[in-house]
Amino acid sequence: MSETRLGQATNFDSWKHAYAKRAENLAVSEVRALFSVVSRPEVVSLAGGMPDVSAMDNDLIRTAFDSLMSSRPQYALQYGGGQGDLRLREQIQEIMELEGVHGSVEDLMITTGSQHALELLSDLFLDQGDVVLVESPSYVGAVGIFRHKEAHIEHVFTDADGISPVAVAEAADRLIADGKRVKLLYLVPNFANPSGVTLSESRRDELIKVCAERGILIIEDNPYGQLYFDKQPPRALRAREAEGVVYLGSFSKILSPGLRVGYVLAPPAIREKLVLANESAVLSPATFAQMLISEYLSICDWKAQIASYRNLYREKRDAAFSALEQYLPKVATTRPEGGFFLWLTLPQGLNSKEMLPLAVTELVAYTPGTAFFGDGRGKENIRVCFSHPTSERVKIGIQRLSNVINRQIDLIDTFGVQQ
Amino acid sequence: MSETRLGQATNFDSWKHAYAKRAENLAVSEVRALFSVVSRPEVVSLAGGMPDVSAMDNDLIRTAFDSLMSSRPQYALQYGGGQGDLRLREQIQEIMELEGVHGSVEDLMITTGSQHALELLSDLFLDQGDVVLVESPSYVGAVGIFRHKEAHIEHVFTDADGISPVAVAEAADRLIADGKRVKLLYLVPNFANPSGVTLSESRRDELIKVCAERGILIIEDNPYGQLYFDKQPPRALRAREAEGVVYLGSFSKILSPGLRVGYVLAPPAIREKLVLANESAVLSPATFAQMLISEYLSICDWKAQIASYRNLYREKRDAAFSALEQYLPKVATTRPEGGFFLWLTLPQGLNSKEMLPLAVTELVAYTPGTAFFGDGRGKENIRVCFSHPTSERVKIGIQRLSNVINRQIDLIDTFGVQQ
Repeated sequence: MSETRLGQATNFDSWKHAYAKRAENLAVSEVRALFSVVSRPEVVSLAGGMPDVSAMDNDLIRTAFDSLMSSRPQYALQYGGGQGDLRLREQIQEIMELEGVHGSVEDLMITTGSQHALELLSDLFLDQGDVVLVESPSYVGAVGIFRHKEAHIEHVFTDADGISPVAVAEAADRLIADGKRVKLLYLVPNFANPSGVTLSESRRDELIKVCAERGILIIEDNPYGQLYFDKQPPRALRAREAEGVVYLGSFSKILSPGLRVGYVLAPPAIREKLVLANESAVLSPATFAQMLISEYLSICDWKAQIASYRNLYREKRDAAFSALEQYLPKVATTRPEGGFFLWLTLPQGLNSKEMLPLAVTELVAYTPGTAFFGDGRGKENIRVCFSHPTSERVKIGIQRLSNVINRQIDLIDTFGVQQ
Repeated sequence: MSETRLGQATNFDSWKHAYAKRAENLAVSEVRALFSVVSRPEVVSLAGGMPDVSAMDNDLIRTAFDSLMSSRPQYALQYGGGQGDLRLREQIQEIMELEGVHGSVEDLMITTGSQHALELLSDLFLDQGDVVLVESPSYVGAVGIFRHKEAHIEHVFTDADGISPVAVAEAADRLIADGKRVKLLYLVPNFANPSGVTLSESRRDELIKVCAERGILIIEDNPYGQLYFDKQPPRALRAREAEGVVYLGSFSKILSPGLRVGYVLAPPAIREKLVLANESAVLSPATFAQMLISEYLSICDWKAQIASYRNLYREKRDAAFSALEQYLPKVATTRPEGGFFLWLTLPQGLNSKEMLPLAVTELVAYTPGTAFFGDGRGKENIRVCFSHPTSERVKIGIQRLSNVINRQIDLIDTFGVQQ
């Protein structure tokens, strides 16, 4: 991988005059800069956001592949339709029903990971200056796309029960009064990336009402919904309201991100446009990956595989909690009941972004909170991703992190907060 | 698959007020409308544009998969970097060298098919009204993307030697004088889709000169270069000029389009931005598909496989030529020396688009020439894709096509040309 300095092009550019205006908004994400660090084995990475694919039973993948290659290789290797494989879409119906979502195969489209669904939706809806309401904090990949589309990103008050519908209404009304077009509300309602919080039952209905009254389309991004540790989260927003919600799902966290297969369920008119946009962007989503997943779902006990992930990630979350209690009792954390992430709030005066190089010298990496805001907030926050390292390594990582944090706290106690 | 009427949304749309302006330019392509027809086995499809994947040795795919799953499954199933797998990029260097192209792995990026490279490049360079110069006719998927970006698509005179550099200069100067920004020249120099023609040796150097003088970036799309029938086409434009050319390649025609793996070689500053755009759009290209291809290239005799395709497609091209001579001696055709396509010019008064439903009742499908122009031209043209059916079916398809065409000619001879 080449090294790119944050926010700066390193190469002389003879085509500088020729770029489109929107190209100015292509920023190097703070997560990306960490990739080269993360790959060093001596570093415990609490950054990333990667599932633990070592827990996948590879024999299931082999079985699915063998079955595919003996039954339908010529379809798997060929171009497919822009909407995606019909059998896979039927199987996705079954997966969505686990979250209470009932949708037609006609309104489902397969995408190159759910990231690309978000890209296509944003391209479809966002003109320059249009408003997207998001959680505080919000998923870094979504913030990046919205910025690239030159949208106005408005972070709305979020607490342990998720994004606040009252604050959504207030923000929307204020921005509408300012003459802005408030187009989308984007959220990860279950075990959110990066905060780990889950939107409460009552807020789900309120949020739908607030958005419907103002003509705001909800994008419900749900990659972690099935990865609950004790009890299932409340029914999806899309299970409550069909016309006002676009629902995104993914195989990245319950099977493999390397296959890049996600999906989007949208109201019919939106779905029609999404299919055209998908065809324009990639001709068709990868047939081979889709059909491999379809074979996997039809042959293997995928529900048992997901259940094993629940146990695996619960154990890692518990390891993170116990290490935090032991080593960082003064640091506040969210209490995720599923998913991959927890969100730390550091004692006053600490800056997670400035502290990162120190952490790397202590052989631990994390993502600074600023990555998850479009407005510079998050300096006092850290996203801890506990999904990828072993439980033992999660603990070691947090212990190392505590060395860095405690040293910073000592510095502040001695010399005061630097302004 | 749902049926969508050409250019019309069929569903009531409660979000009509909310779309971005660019969404108006999402058009249903004429190729797409044929998909449902093509899938009926009794129809000989000369439409499409699909490789004959039945000629792929599936044991090679199995071998590559087994090798991958025993050596590096945890990498293959995981997220990867936004630029793509390093080993695959090194192998692509070797493939590009067959066309005389020497590029750094640093400046190569893997994409979700080369269609997505074109999407990312267009998004990077094209503001509304910017000019893209293209061949007459041009690849339908490119025309669709440029239209979606609200670009001005300028078709430039093209003959049996490819696009004319003199006409490129003339068009560019005229448009620049009109105050337009002429940003890109897009072309398929070898065995072009849809015309089948190849840009001559001398025109390659001229074209580079004309574009360099005017600050126009050349996008050289080369999916068919290795599928020559007798002799290799002239060296790539990128082999002659590095800073002024972005080079696109693909595994879709020499291995499998169902894997959706293409690549782009770009000047460093452009490549940096493309990697950011790729990450924003899909996080990372599919690791699994990339590593499967990488194993295939390292283990199998891929050059022998490509050589077998050359023989296969030459035989099909010859079948098409002999059927055209026998059944349609009055119809003019290009003389492709590689690739998948030939381009027919019908006798005066015939309209390929209007004739298509008649052809389908005769159980043959093709793509009307209008699909390959952004300006309504092409009514008298037909793209014949000879790559997918067997040679025997290619002949039958052309015989059926001749029934339709000859009947139309008889009608015109009897009743005169309808205006």
